[in-house]
Amino acid sequence: MTVSVVRARLLLACALLLAAPVGTAAEPAPATPTALSPASIEHARTLRDQALDGTMAWDMVEALTTEIGPRLAGSEAEARARDWAVSRLRTMGFENVRVEPFTIPGWERGEEHAALLAPFPQPLEITTLGGSVGTPAAGLEAELVSFESLAALRAAAPGSLDGKIAYVSHAMQRTQDGSSYGFYGELRRVGASVAAEKGALALLIRSIGTDSHRFPHTGQMRYAEGVARIPAAALSNPDADQIERVAQRGQPLRVHLALSPQASAEAPSGNVIAEIVGRERPEEIVIIGGHLDSWDLGTGAIDDGAGVAITTAAAKLILDSGKRPRRTIRLILWGAEEVGLLGGYEYLEAHREQLPQHVIGTESDFGAERIWQLTAQVSPAGQAVVDIMSELLAPLGVARGSMDKSGSGPDLVPMVEAGLPSLRLVQNGTDYFDLHHTHDDTLDKIDPAALDQNVAAYVVFTWLAADSTVNFWR
Amino acid sequence: MTVSVVRARLLLACALLLAAPVGTAAEPAPATPTALSPASIEHARTLRDQALDGTMAWDMVEALTTEIGPRLAGSEAEARARDWAVSRLRTMGFENVRVEPFTIPGWERGEEHAALLAPFPQPLEITTLGGSVGTPAAGLEAELVSFESLAALRAAAPGSLDGKIAYVSHAMQRTQDGSSYGFYGELRRVGASVAAEKGALALLIRSIGTDSHRFPHTGQMRYAEGVARIPAAALSNPDADQIERVAQRGQPLRVHLALSPQASAEAPSGNVIAEIVGRERPEEIVIIGGHLDSWDLGTGAIDDGAGVAITTAAAKLILDSGKRPRRTIRLILWGAEEVGLLGGYEYLEAHREQLPQHVIGTESDFGAERIWQLTAQVSPAGQAVVDIMSELLAPLGVARGSMDKSGSGPDLVPMVEAGLPSLRLVQNGTDYFDLHHTHDDTLDKIDPAALDQNVAAYVVFTWLAADSTVNFWR
Repeated sequence: MTVSVVRARLLLACALLLAAPVGTAAEPAPATPTALSPASIEHARTLRDQALDGTMAWDMVEALTTEIGPRLAGSEAEARARDWAVSRLRTMGFENVRVEPFTIPGWERGEEHAALLAPFPQPLEITTLGGSVGTPAAGLEAELVSFESLAALRAAAPGSLDGKIAYVSHAMQRTQDGSSYGFYGELRRVGASVAAEKGALALLIRSIGTDSHRFPHTGQMRYAEGVARIPAAALSNPDADQIERVAQRGQPLRVHLALSPQASAEAPSGNVIAEIVGRERPEEIVIIGGHLDSWDLGTGAIDDGAGVAITTAAAKLILDSGKRPRRTIRLILWGAEEVGLLGGYEYLEAHREQLPQHVIGTESDFGAERIWQLTAQVSPAGQAVVDIMSELLAPLGVARGSMDKSGSGPDLVPMVEAGLPSLRLVQNGTDYFDLHHTHDDTLDKIDPAALDQNVAAYVVFTWLAADSTVNFWR
Repeated sequence: MTVSVVRARLLLACALLLAAPVGTAAEPAPATPTALSPASIEHARTLRDQALDGTMAWDMVEALTTEIGPRLAGSEAEARARDWAVSRLRTMGFENVRVEPFTIPGWERGEEHAALLAPFPQPLEITTLGGSVGTPAAGLEAELVSFESLAALRAAAPGSLDGKIAYVSHAMQRTQDGSSYGFYGELRRVGASVAAEKGALALLIRSIGTDSHRFPHTGQMRYAEGVARIPAAALSNPDADQIERVAQRGQPLRVHLALSPQASAEAPSGNVIAEIVGRERPEEIVIIGGHLDSWDLGTGAIDDGAGVAITTAAAKLILDSGKRPRRTIRLILWGAEEVGLLGGYEYLEAHREQLPQHVIGTESDFGAERIWQLTAQVSPAGQAVVDIMSELLAPLGVARGSMDKSGSGPDLVPMVEAGLPSLRLVQNGTDYFDLHHTHDDTLDKIDPAALDQNVAAYVVFTWLAADSTVNFWR
């Protein structure tokens, strides 16, 4: 062991000591080498403070949402967004900027209209769920039968909905961490096939959203194999309230529904990639990013222009710092996330052999509010680096959450399922589902200072993960 | 003078003394006979407190917005609303329940689509202004020229907009009393003809609204005589922001606009009237009410289901109290307000000879928030009654405002211009123009407790005005 190695280990031990939680009853964690020098940690702190002083994140999301606007997976607009991103990332000075193209099933919304015909005629605000088939061109007209939950729909007798439209309520409740989206979102994802099994002609659901505005929330649905494919749409929450008030009056409800989405076998998509190549271990990769596609209704500001902007701004701060980390930082602006994490699956497929070289990853895809919690899913050795990150993030108002499960981010799910270590910088999502997948997901909802706080957290994670030599794999 | 008259006058003097402002430097107001007995004033107080304990206002607006929904002036839905109101008012026990029918020019919205074609193709959220002509069936496509205000549009040279679409910003700011609606709303009312005079093919405006949601705000517009009639529509505020960000980038904007409203020469409307006939002076009339029609986009909850409900509930409390006031209370649920106060003009036309028998009037048409101010426009003698009202309203958080000009309410404008005394119970309108004339004007925006506070204020006004014998005319 050379003197310099001994000195480095001592300094690391000091850093870890500083980073250790104070005042807990737990035994002190054993010092684990992170290969992070005090200068490296200091650099992370400097980058963090620079981010808090202002970043290019706002300009990036402003430009993406203004110059491209909505960018549905597979659309010409998503292709324009890839070109836009490649051009911007090259101009910024990133290395190895490229598109990894793939194809997806195509789907476009078309027209969407609904009306209550009886007992009280009036229009309804709806939107087609992504992937849904259409109605006959003239629409369909049928009695509406209401269910209070997906479970209640599941309990209906087969054939009991023959010739009818099923309506399911199931009002989503707010959470800070977004953890109830899986629970409430199941209705959107699987409801059509459950209704079809009972004989229904179509499914209408209360929007998977927490607002009380007349914006219906779209989002992807799936058909089960071997079940009739019926059209599915979401009512805005005030319209769902209206349907429920009418239903309480006891008279039968008749509804007209006309949806004309168009599906196609194949449409182009792709992941946009940019790098800062590592100075010592260029083959080892730290992944950050957001997804470039959005739903077609809004301009994809909080979902996920913000994530694209936050992670690009974090990488750009490192690029401009003049210091290159040991490992490669790979910024991935994912394609076709909204329609089933298709960019994530395609990436894993294309890079499966190099998966072990991916040391850790995270994604920003939960809006534009401030980060309040850090969660991780890494080895004990990796935990020592997370401890340092945690120390640097505490002044930003970021608390330590679960160290057993991160949540990662949707596009990393395929790789995390295959073993990739991950970390999540959890944004405050209390209001996220007010805007999610609606016309109202636009730039005016984003606070530039909150974006910069996000960038500050991402730059700390990105620099430290990429400048360490720790094996995060468990 | 009989003993009983002397006694009554003494009691009135006592009432006035109690009602006089305390602790001001002003000289005591001279005692003016109001003919209001202490028992009458006490009855007003009782009715007020009953209202605060809960009224039928919420049920009324719930039923109107659910069972009828949108009710555009001249439409079949407005006719249904009249039938609904007549039936309800008769069931409640009001006297002389009737419709005073009239006809108006017909107008229906049709389809409305807009898109930015260049430099950044994307859809835009718009709505046609009420009364606008349509575009050619295929829509029109033209360069967009931006103006920062109506004044800037007026200053453009004739012919300078030949073949172009004019866009005017002019972002409305919040006020508590709604007083800036006239100023900002002028763009909507007259802008199309100003743009046409410069050669424009069409007018797009920033919505006259204070929210940042993707709901465009409709509202009536007018064409000037002798000027080409061009189509006019409003962009939602986030879309207006978007257009302005794009324009700042310096490249020419091209826009596609397709509007298909349908006008007709004649459509049915009417005012619904219900009364509590006065016990001593049945020919003298106190008017309260709201308007029954709404724009077609929302369900007309705050505009003006709330006003209908508040004033009906106030009248119903008096009806149910078992005491009849001296004068007749006439509840008018106005028709065709949104399209130019047509119900108000028709009423004046039909009742011009009886105008002097209308002793005072007011209308609730500024949403569903709490009342914070009382303004009046009455004789000095009438002011003595207003003083008593003011005393009873102070505990509800209602302050005295101008005693020279009331603001009355839109449907009373024709009569107030002809001399009718009026009073206004001013609601807090800080958020009113977030929802006004949008899809989002729905029941969920109404707080039942705030409605009841409104009813409490209206019942005080209505009882005291109708039970006094004062001449409010100036």
